[in-house]
Amino acid sequence: MPDTRSFERPGLRDIAGYVPGEQPAGGVKLNTNENPYPPPPAVAETLARFPVERLRRYPPAAGDPFRTAAAHLHGVDPNEIVATNGGDELLRLALATYVDPGEAVAIAPPTYSLYKVLIRLHGARPVELPLTEGWETPDGFVDALDRSGARLAFFVNPHAPSGRLFERGAVEAIAAGFDGVLLVDEAYVDFVDPAHGYDLVPAIREHPNLLVLRTLSKGYSLAGLRFGYGIGSAPLLEPMQTKTKDSYNVDALAAEIARAAIESRTWAADNWATVRTERERLRAGLARLGLPTLPSETNFVLATVPPDALARCPDDRGVGTAANALYLALKARDVHVRWFGETRLADRLRITVGTPEENDRLLAVLADLLSPAPAH
Amino acid sequence: MPDTRSFERPGLRDIAGYVPGEQPAGGVKLNTNENPYPPPPAVAETLARFPVERLRRYPPAAGDPFRTAAAHLHGVDPNEIVATNGGDELLRLALATYVDPGEAVAIAPPTYSLYKVLIRLHGARPVELPLTEGWETPDGFVDALDRSGARLAFFVNPHAPSGRLFERGAVEAIAAGFDGVLLVDEAYVDFVDPAHGYDLVPAIREHPNLLVLRTLSKGYSLAGLRFGYGIGSAPLLEPMQTKTKDSYNVDALAAEIARAAIESRTWAADNWATVRTERERLRAGLARLGLPTLPSETNFVLATVPPDALARCPDDRGVGTAANALYLALKARDVHVRWFGETRLADRLRITVGTPEENDRLLAVLADLLSPAPAH
Repeated sequence: MPDTRSFERPGLRDIAGYVPGEQPAGGVKLNTNENPYPPPPAVAETLARFPVERLRRYPPAAGDPFRTAAAHLHGVDPNEIVATNGGDELLRLALATYVDPGEAVAIAPPTYSLYKVLIRLHGARPVELPLTEGWETPDGFVDALDRSGARLAFFVNPHAPSGRLFERGAVEAIAAGFDGVLLVDEAYVDFVDPAHGYDLVPAIREHPNLLVLRTLSKGYSLAGLRFGYGIGSAPLLEPMQTKTKDSYNVDALAAEIARAAIESRTWAADNWATVRTERERLRAGLARLGLPTLPSETNFVLATVPPDALARCPDDRGVGTAANALYLALKARDVHVRWFGETRLADRLRITVGTPEENDRLLAVLADLLSPAPAH
Repeated sequence: MPDTRSFERPGLRDIAGYVPGEQPAGGVKLNTNENPYPPPPAVAETLARFPVERLRRYPPAAGDPFRTAAAHLHGVDPNEIVATNGGDELLRLALATYVDPGEAVAIAPPTYSLYKVLIRLHGARPVELPLTEGWETPDGFVDALDRSGARLAFFVNPHAPSGRLFERGAVEAIAAGFDGVLLVDEAYVDFVDPAHGYDLVPAIREHPNLLVLRTLSKGYSLAGLRFGYGIGSAPLLEPMQTKTKDSYNVDALAAEIARAAIESRTWAADNWATVRTERERLRAGLARLGLPTLPSETNFVLATVPPDALARCPDDRGVGTAANALYLALKARDVHVRWFGETRLADRLRITVGTPEENDRLLAVLADLLSPAPAH
């Protein structure tokens, strides 16, 4: 008789894991917000000259020299930087460091769906404080957050999946009124128009409960490297550095590549500008096809698919919304975008800004799919 | 007034973090069990030909193609392999996957000190079942383990810090008699003499609760890469693959390097043989200096420092044991070994097997330190 004992801990059995976006091998891939341009040339140079012998020894425990370079970039102290395996590790570490199992953690849905999965995996209790229909924090948001008893709040800015940017003052007001840790997930901040002058990092000096998340996945075209970091006051980061992160959490080679990447900020910033230009062109093209989008400060747009698009769309395998039907029809044509089957998002598509050629292809396929059926 | 709120979660405040071995920049470094020889040539070749453009996209979620290569090496299915950031991540994931906070986890001290730290950080309860003075499991060990109610047990084999190897049958008997997950940490298994014919991996088919830990840190000279893996039955690994590990936990470049390394097993095995030869030469040299060691199947030895060595050793800054005094005297001469100030180990030094030159230097400095004082 086969041994079918399950060793999964009871607290885990009813929790579904996070399902990342698909990684199709070919086609036009506009579904997981990767940067359409390659990593900075300094990445290849670092690979070419990296002394392999260094891998023989344990790496510097805190991810230096990356940490020093990031501190220099942001004008903070190295003790105010923690290096992590992608931004995702920082999310997990924030829970492990600031939240005991059973305690509350706040999110403001719609938001990055991983937050809720991680909160539940940690045995903590998600508290939802939804944004308004206009993607604003509702009146009394800060008070409600503080009254919720949450020890930690995840807040993404620029917001995903809407793309909107909350001003620094609004974010600081949350930090000031909340007696817990405010993690501001700035995964997409590199794409914000510099004209906004948005920079939250200096606010860590005013707010000892503010933890800013950065990642190299999007802005520096390094999603495959798994490198992110946190910026916060040294006392806030200290238990993470000395207790909850794995002793040597980032590897010696990745830290060196990440350092080279952020030292290429000027090179990368040219791509960010190109993405912004293409974003506006994509929005205009989508609007002409009857798919309105919100203004975005990221490398993606959130398009609304009106119900009448369903009739115009030939695919009938969907789950009933025009957006789902269009998502499937695009996929059948090897054009990949993201559809989230959840409250407030079921009639939308999230579309990554690609290269001009990729965006043109998307618009052409959409034009084809959404044409009125020929008269017969 | 400065804001001195602490945001560290209450459950963490009384726990001390793990303190890794020191990483001195120079000198003879025999304190953290790194391999004295460089990584396989295929590592440099992989770096040289890696297409940087691949880093732009998210990596394969399960760490392929490494996982496929490891499955091939061990004659198991890819679903029986989980890739991790060093062996340390697998230890943490085992707790996160199989143990609810408050439950018991067993260890057999003296052992790798990280186990107990991770157990406490997870909010679990360490249960200690000490080895005998002869580094054996005591009579009734398996029954005591099962009666302890532990959901998980960490068992290192070959054993650290003694260096001894438990035979496969003894390990299987533990797995068979224990209704929890048995994680066998084989960090040092590559250095076991092939004449023993030790291979625990096929036992995962018999024991659905057996999780074998491997790392590339020691055998493949890649401590700086942070790459390890687990081998276990697919149902045992499934919740780790889909829930508790970060979505993309190992990076695309590290997975490619790790694949190249394990495919160079024959090359690496030549170094393992050299380490074994040097290990026996080192043991003989230490014995001649009055520092007996146990037989070891690893790349380190555990030397006993008899009390009279204290009188022979010029350093007086120690904490009272001859081993501590000798550790400090060696360090002052830029020769780094490991001293653990804990029960049963306070009179020992753990010494990594280095290159012939490093071992000669260690023996020469020891001979100098332990000479009888000149008559006057």
